[in-house]
Amino acid sequence: MSDKTILETFPNPATDRDYVIEHVSPEFTSMCPKTGQPDFGEVRVSYVADEVCVELKSLKFYFNAFRNEGIFYEAVTNRILDDLVAVLSPRKMEVVTQWKPRGGLSSVITASYEKPSA
Amino acid sequence: MSDKTILETFPNPATDRDYVIEHVSPEFTSMCPKTGQPDFGEVRVSYVADEVCVELKSLKFYFNAFRNEGIFYEAVTNRILDDLVAVLSPRKMEVVTQWKPRGGLSSVITASYEKPSA
Amino acid sequence: MSDKTILETFPNPATDRDYVIEHVSPEFTSMCPKTGQPDFGEVRVSYVADEVCVELKSLKFYFNAFRNEGIFYEAVTNRILDDLVAVLSPRKMEVVTQWKPRGGLSSVITASYEKPSA
Amino acid sequence: MSDKTILETFPNPATDRDYVIEHVSPEFTSMCPKTGQPDFGEVRVSYVADEVCVELKSLKFYFNAFRNEGIFYEAVTNRILDDLVAVLSPRKMEVVTQWKPRGGLSSVITASYEKPSA
Amino acid sequence: MSDKTILETFPNPATDRDYVIEHVSPEFTSMCPKTGQPDFGEVRVSYVADEVCVELKSLKFYFNAFRNEGIFYEAVTNRILDDLVAVLSPRKMEVVTQWKPRGGLSSVITASYEKPSA
Amino acid sequence: MSDKTILETFPNPATDRDYVIEHVSPEFTSMCPKTGQPDFGEVRVSYVADEVCVELKSLKFYFNAFRNEGIFYEAVTNRILDDLVAVLSPRKMEVVTQWKPRGGLSSVITASYEKPSA
Amino acid sequence: MSDKTILETFPNPATDRDYVIEHVSPEFTSMCPKTGQPDFGEVRVSYVADEVCVELKSLKFYFNAFRNEGIFYEAVTNRILDDLVAVLSPRKMEVVTQWKPRGGLSSVITASYEKPSA
Amino acid sequence: MSDKTILETFPNPATDRDYVIEHVSPEFTSMCPKTGQPDFGEVRVSYVADEVCVELKSLKFYFNAFRNEGIFYEAVTNRILDDLVAVLSPRKMEVVTQWKPRGGLSSVITASYEKPSA
Amino acid sequence: MSDKTILETFPNPATDRDYVIEHVSPEFTSMCPKTGQPDFGEVRVSYVADEVCVELKSLKFYFNAFRNEGIFYEAVTNRILDDLVAVLSPRKMEVVTQWKPRGGLSSVITASYEKPSA
Amino acid sequence: MSDKTILETFPNPATDRDYVIEHVSPEFTSMCPKTGQPDFGEVRVSYVADEVCVELKSLKFYFNAFRNEGIFYEAVTNRILDDLVAVLSPRKMEVVTQWKPRGGLSSVITASYEKPSA
Repeated sequence: MSDKTILETFPNPATDRDYVIEHVSPEFTSMCPKTGQPDFGEVRVSYVADEVCVELKSLKFYFNAFRNEGIFYEAVTNRILDDLVAVLSPRKMEVVTQWKPRGGLSSVITASYEKPSA
Repeated sequence: MSDKTILETFPNPATDRDYVIEHVSPEFTSMCPKTGQPDFGEVRVSYVADEVCVELKSLKFYFNAFRNEGIFYEAVTNRILDDLVAVLSPRKMEVVTQWKPRGGLSSVITASYEKPSA
Repeated sequence: MSDKTILETFPNPATDRDYVIEHVSPEFTSMCPKTGQPDFGEVRVSYVADEVCVELKSLKFYFNAFRNEGIFYEAVTNRILDDLVAVLSPRKMEVVTQWKPRGGLSSVITASYEKPSA
Repeated sequence: MSDKTILETFPNPATDRDYVIEHVSPEFTSMCPKTGQPDFGEVRVSYVADEVCVELKSLKFYFNAFRNEGIFYEAVTNRILDDLVAVLSPRKMEVVTQWKPRGGLSSVITASYEKPSA
Repeated sequence: MSDKTILETFPNPATDRDYVIEHVSPEFTSMCPKTGQPDFGEVRVSYVADEVCVELKSLKFYFNAFRNEGIFYEAVTNRILDDLVAVLSPRKMEVVTQWKPRGGLSSVITASYEKPSA
Repeated sequence: MSDKTILETFPNPATDRDYVIEHVSPEFTSMCPKTGQPDFGEVRVSYVADEVCVELKSLKFYFNAFRNEGIFYEAVTNRILDDLVAVLSPRKMEVVTQWKPRGGLSSVITASYEKPSA
Repeated sequence: MSDKTILETFPNPATDRDYVIEHVSPEFTSMCPKTGQPDFGEVRVSYVADEVCVELKSLKFYFNAFRNEGIFYEAVTNRILDDLVAVLSPRKMEVVTQWKPRGGLSSVITASYEKPSA
Repeated sequence: MSDKTILETFPNPATDRDYVIEHVSPEFTSMCPKTGQPDFGEVRVSYVADEVCVELKSLKFYFNAFRNEGIFYEAVTNRILDDLVAVLSPRKMEVVTQWKPRGGLSSVITASYEKPSA
Repeated sequence: MSDKTILETFPNPATDRDYVIEHVSPEFTSMCPKTGQPDFGEVRVSYVADEVCVELKSLKFYFNAFRNEGIFYEAVTNRILDDLVAVLSPRKMEVVTQWKPRGGLSSVITASYEKPSA
Repeated sequence: MSDKTILETFPNPATDRDYVIEHVSPEFTSMCPKTGQPDFGEVRVSYVADEVCVELKSLKFYFNAFRNEGIFYEAVTNRILDDLVAVLSPRKMEVVTQWKPRGGLSSVITASYEKPSA
């Protein structure tokens, strides 16, 4: 079961500067909640860190935890964004998932977040 | 015969956020209304959902229904946009069709819609 | 319904030489006999003509006639080879069909023929 | 000799919407007016139609008519734009020609038009 | 757990001819038996059928059953070959697995079988 | 009108060695003898010279001379081979023509020659 | 020695319209002033002509004249821009040079000019 | 140990113009501070010089000095930017590092600087 | 210092069959013994195992140990082959190293081994 | 002027084994002897060394020496082969030159040598 507590962080080494960190996993898999068949995709996370950055190995374990979970494309994309925003509290973040064809149709879902100005 | 009642929907799992859903079918075919010969193309639909999302399998069946229908490139592109807007009432939508060469000429048609602000 | 009588021929302009003619159609479509859903693929025919060559437009019409026929990948490949061998009586021929993914699996079928030496 | 009267039109099926129609011919050829040698290129026309769209086959014949005409890259690009604007009266149009290398230099010419607001 | 009894067959439609059938799944995943982490790869099966062909959907389910099984690259490749040979008794078969990088190293395993002549 | 007397030669600078010379023209055009419409293709000539090599500029002019000639794919390929063999008397030669799609079908014709051993 | 007087011009055939002319030479070479070793690159010039266009063959000769001249990447890029602006007096111009790796480092220099409004 | 005093400069040959200089090294390597294993990446530096440009060979030596240093992706990217800004005092600069996959995840870090207006 | 005792093995799971195992590392680096500068390349090892296979993680550590060793392209390729043959005693093995350009020249070295028949 | 005495050698580190060394220079340039204009190409040398290997930097200087020499494609290819065979006395060697288009025609010349068995 996926779980945001898997995610670990480390202090942003350059908090005085807005810079972009992108991590791409071409090896994402989850299950279709309707058919029980596996879905395969790529997840791309890019963000501007605030106080903390996500630790790479924990991000991999977080992604792996979706392996046997039934969840729709649209839902998993928004869940990853919500979980990472909750843990990292970034200045900005975008999550893009690209899915291999099902029934001849391939899909891309793109969701983003921007921290409200204080 | 193509028919928008084929399209099914499910509730948007993240209505509080504008995010982009894209579905690509590289396997679209219809007929040329002048020559009766088949046309082949790719259809790309991207949209920001409002209350509902389109169900993937029903979208495939909706596209398949154009298989033996005679219709021009410009008309089919606008029809797909009109049908999907009618069924989904999205915040924004774009439909792009790319057609394999006929007489050495390949074509791309791009039509888009934006919901009027209330 | 597909039909080999659609195929037309013209005299081979260089019967004294073995040379290779290849025609590729990236726009082949037929129907799955089990699900009734459309299949999409590319057909590649290469051959060494003997007395006659296949006329290009008639080959296109021959391919188009499979559009609404339910037939398996393995069967359609062997049928195209059998039909073209029957009509052209070539010295050699190879037919390759490449199919877009179904259930995440894409397929390629390759069948060939060589005229028995007299 | 090229001639804009070759171009035929049909009514725009969606006049209430600005949408983009693009036609690409990778098979354009004309003659160099200085050397008499053939030039080869690709012509890309994209436009937002107003009342009429250009018929695809007539566009092909229009392009073919440049085959034995001596004309510079810059001139042919502007002529195609002028001819299509005269016949279609589009809301917007762009013509791009890309030319194969001559003397090691390849060239791209891009000209565009926008209908003055009433 | 993977299981060759999942595999279904149908009669070869052209037993009089040696022709090649290839199925490619870019969506294969199993587990590393040492680390418990998922491995991702592509499986390519090509064969000359004898009496029967493998049914495509059952092949997909057979591949899916490796999803949560811990098995080395070399072992899984030979197991797929052994299982398919046992069920199909083909004239010839080749199995190729290509694996995404682990520790910066990507791997390809290729195993093949040829039916002994009678 | 195409004409092999356009071809010029120069002495082979290394007659004691069999080595391969290949010239590729991606800018070949001729006319379809049935429809009068232009065909576009690429011509690839590779050969082992005997006493003479073909001069590059004359080869270009020889190709250009097909520009307004109506001739089938199969015939033009064999004609180019026959003309070059007649003028160069090479040890070996291969001519490959690749044609842009017509009616969705693209074609490749490959013809070759080998000098009989004395 | 490079020399801007090599450059020839011809009248802009469409002075009433801002359109873009781009010429690309993938065959540029000069010498490193420090090591005396050759540098190899691609030069890309794009501009909006005012009264005159640059003649293609003279541009080639102008580029060729850098062949044995020792000059740094940054200097040659700005010199080409200055020379072409002096001769053509364009409305806008951009020069991009892309250089093959030296010591594992490849470089791209981009300089542009815009005519001051009167 | 990396050290910004390795970097050498030469006078900007065109200080009156804002133009972009980009250097790309696809051969960057450092060490992971946690595992001690090597990381491999590409570093891309683009900048608008003010008074001085960076000398190419010294930039290569500066990059090479990270070879046996343990440092995180985010830290090395910001350090390169800080070092180059300190030495060159550029008008603008961007540093992009792209890293080969670790645990199936590849990363890209992008940091930029703009000189405050006086 | 590189050292073949780093290499670990595990029993070949299919000794009754000749099958090919290939491991590719695009992240190889060593030092030029003349200049002391780093070289970067890709190492590709393919082999038919006899009694044992090489363990992947140990192969990675073996490659990493060349990081600060001065050695020529030709020598390192033959050394890797000799070391792996000594440890694995394979039926066949091929080692290919591809090197990034130095002085504009890129290199590929290919060495192979076949076990003498008993 | 090109000169084979520029070439330096070092002892083959593995004389007991036939292995292949390939060096590729994508930055070769010479002059056309007829027009005086520069030609640009790529030179690919692959060989099985006997007693000596060619030193990489000297090979680069040897290639650079053709920079201002007028020589035909066919002649330069055979000259490079002859020079390298004379200096290295290899077991086998192949030289391939690929030339950028002139008059729309690109060329590839391939010459090879094999040491006579004793």
